[in-house]
Amino acid sequence: MIIDCHGHYTTAPAAHDRFRQDQLAHYEDTSLPAPVYGAISDDEIRDSVESNQLKLQKERGADLTIFSPRASAMAHHLGDDTVSLDWSRHCNDLIARVCELYPDNFVGVCQLPQSPDAPARNSVGELERCVNELGFVGCNLNPDPSGGHWRSKPLTDRGWYPLFEKLVELDVPAMIHVSSTCNENFHATGAHYINADTTAFMQFIQGDLFTDFPSLRLVIPHGGGAVPYHWGRYRGLADMLGRPPLAEHVMQNVFFDTCVYHQPGIDLLFEVIDVDNILFASEMVGAVRGIDPETGHYFDDTRRYVEALELSEEARAKVFELNARRVYPRLDKILKDRGK
Amino acid sequence: MIIDCHGHYTTAPAAHDRFRQDQLAHYEDTSLPAPVYGAISDDEIRDSVESNQLKLQKERGADLTIFSPRASAMAHHLGDDTVSLDWSRHCNDLIARVCELYPDNFVGVCQLPQSPDAPARNSVGELERCVNELGFVGCNLNPDPSGGHWRSKPLTDRGWYPLFEKLVELDVPAMIHVSSTCNENFHATGAHYINADTTAFMQFIQGDLFTDFPSLRLVIPHGGGAVPYHWGRYRGLADMLGRPPLAEHVMQNVFFDTCVYHQPGIDLLFEVIDVDNILFASEMVGAVRGIDPETGHYFDDTRRYVEALELSEEARAKVFELNARRVYPRLDKILKDRGK
Repeated sequence: MIIDCHGHYTTAPAAHDRFRQDQLAHYEDTSLPAPVYGAISDDEIRDSVESNQLKLQKERGADLTIFSPRASAMAHHLGDDTVSLDWSRHCNDLIARVCELYPDNFVGVCQLPQSPDAPARNSVGELERCVNELGFVGCNLNPDPSGGHWRSKPLTDRGWYPLFEKLVELDVPAMIHVSSTCNENFHATGAHYINADTTAFMQFIQGDLFTDFPSLRLVIPHGGGAVPYHWGRYRGLADMLGRPPLAEHVMQNVFFDTCVYHQPGIDLLFEVIDVDNILFASEMVGAVRGIDPETGHYFDDTRRYVEALELSEEARAKVFELNARRVYPRLDKILKDRGK
Repeated sequence: MIIDCHGHYTTAPAAHDRFRQDQLAHYEDTSLPAPVYGAISDDEIRDSVESNQLKLQKERGADLTIFSPRASAMAHHLGDDTVSLDWSRHCNDLIARVCELYPDNFVGVCQLPQSPDAPARNSVGELERCVNELGFVGCNLNPDPSGGHWRSKPLTDRGWYPLFEKLVELDVPAMIHVSSTCNENFHATGAHYINADTTAFMQFIQGDLFTDFPSLRLVIPHGGGAVPYHWGRYRGLADMLGRPPLAEHVMQNVFFDTCVYHQPGIDLLFEVIDVDNILFASEMVGAVRGIDPETGHYFDDTRRYVEALELSEEARAKVFELNARRVYPRLDKILKDRGK
């Protein structure tokens, strides 16, 4: 089977976004009405995915998407921790409804109620709720809740540890994924996302996170940011900084997805990164929605690039299915319980 | 001939760095003695380059390095604009001395006296001095003088225009190059440098800088950050944002260097980026100083990777020489005056 480990609900019904607008308006001006989360029917949800994520999943031949709230709309920098928790719960509940309607096609990953001035431990409760009550298999962790100002500590700081402890205890991975920015230097999907991926990887080289959490698993999306392209630089920096080789120090715990939107990029990814560390993903419907005039296919139809690699059957199975089942063991259990 | 467009004076004599320490100490506590720039003999300068940059240049078969002050030591976020101007003048004067001692091997590029709260036009005077009086052929432009907090406007903002106007008037390019950081999230050479390259490129997609300055030329170092690896994403984003194709909107004015420290990265760079937009460079003695155990050669011996491409004679001449002479016309004139 083919598992896409990185899909966002970028097409949620209008009532969902309206709640967010009202919520933020009320936060700015409490004389405005308190936000009310309007009713969303199952049919509205069906419409929103059947013409988008589900349609593309089928057209492109994937079987199941690890599905999370729209990343750019997490916007942890807006409001405060109460606002973020309320918004996150609604976002996660909506994902749960999609997964309930299409259990064969979507499995949930949650947004965390992070906030720039809130400690990471404040996100533990919602993570537990999503995993234990909603059946989610992972979370998206924003390394920069300030939205492009990078006011938090590096991910290797002990302030993040309560969250990592919970991830380990629940045996779920986190995808390192920033949100939109309030710093005009950074275009979200064109700069901030990629920069965050690169930044997180370098933090892992510098720190000792995986010595403290040997079973923690983190997925760096967008093909690992700039890292595979500069793999020599990172190998060299690890050596220069007196860190252990990347293979043992970082790559037992860190995985890259295949959200790289052209063949040469995918070729490079598979040339330098061990196939055990690569998870198939498309990030659709997401950052880049158009058709590549050079190929005539959608930029984010990443399966085509991976298929063009002519991998061995074993490698192909790892990238499309087995690595995801290993990194997300709760997904593996769900599938096994279904006889898959 | 082989021109290396990206070399830093990372091995300056101790008196130079001592001045900087004293300068910053005095800035923090004016009761301390005002800094005095100690004498540096020609022999000290010779020692500092002959065992480093010059030695490696000869060993690796390059002929001439476009040479600038140590990038991480620009540290525009320290002190204020007066401190930055004083430091920049000393740094640039020292580069001029290296170039005077070894005119066949080094040609100068200057550091600008940027400061987080100073407008870009404050850098125009030092740029003019370096080009008109010291014979420099370009400058390094820091897109984030705040050192990892990104408090400036994007490079496409009109606040930067006085500097771009002067670059055009003097007919010199700028390399977009950040310095060290005071934000612990970003390792300088492992994250901040690469992120800045990526960020600048995306700003150019979003803006219309080269409509306003059609003859402006900017070099994005470190192989263009993450851009070539994600070339499909950038082509797709340009399309999605309603921007013109990259080839006409950005790539008439933007050039990438070859500071990518492994063969697969260089292969990718040349596969997706037109050879007219690639300038040979090593960034040595710089970010990564060790030997790659996989090849037995220095990570930053980038000539090996380029030679392994088996380029046509024409393409080879462009990358190693002709593109640099086109992007840095004042260098071309210097060489022509010498009959080269």
